[in-house]
Amino acid sequence: MIRAKLLILPKTGVFDPQGEALRNALIQLGLNETQSVRVGKDIVIEFKDAEEEKLKEKVEEVAKNFLSNPVIEQYEIEWEKEQK
Amino acid sequence: MIRAKLLILPKTGVFDPQGEALRNALIQLGLNETQSVRVGKDIVIEFKDAEEEKLKEKVEEVAKNFLSNPVIEQYEIEWEKEQK
Repeated sequence: MIRAKLLILPKTGVFDPQGEALRNALIQLGLNETQSVRVGKDIVIEFKDAEEEKLKEKVEEVAKNFLSNPVIEQYEIEWEKEQK
Repeated sequence: MIRAKLLILPKTGVFDPQGEALRNALIQLGLNETQSVRVGKDIVIEFKDAEEEKLKEKVEEVAKNFLSNPVIEQYEIEWEKEQK
């Protein structure tokens, strides 16, 4: 089994309303040390065993073209392999 | 500067409608090897330097009581420290 962990976050410098709202809430909850907050999506996909290079290429393409908005978001993919 | 990366995902076994919809979409996009998809939130919080143990306790409490729903979600926190 192969696992891809996609982390999709707003690009640094792009205004993140969710992050800003959360930053204010954390300060009100007593976390005065809070400087910045970014809120993103995390997508964990598990695949049956497959030809790794081809799979990675396809997932990279899907991440760039469908799962993230390249104008305001950046993404990174972490790969894990589990022997079953 | 201290950074906390909160990963909040649906508990395994809890029905994840977003994950299910995405799983079907990935299969239609040609990723037939897709077995399961879980969609969650990723929150990256940066703090001014502070007393670490106290900060970690506060963030743990906020994560449990405000940022995640303990009935259907699980969370994990990764800590990073940057010397400035």
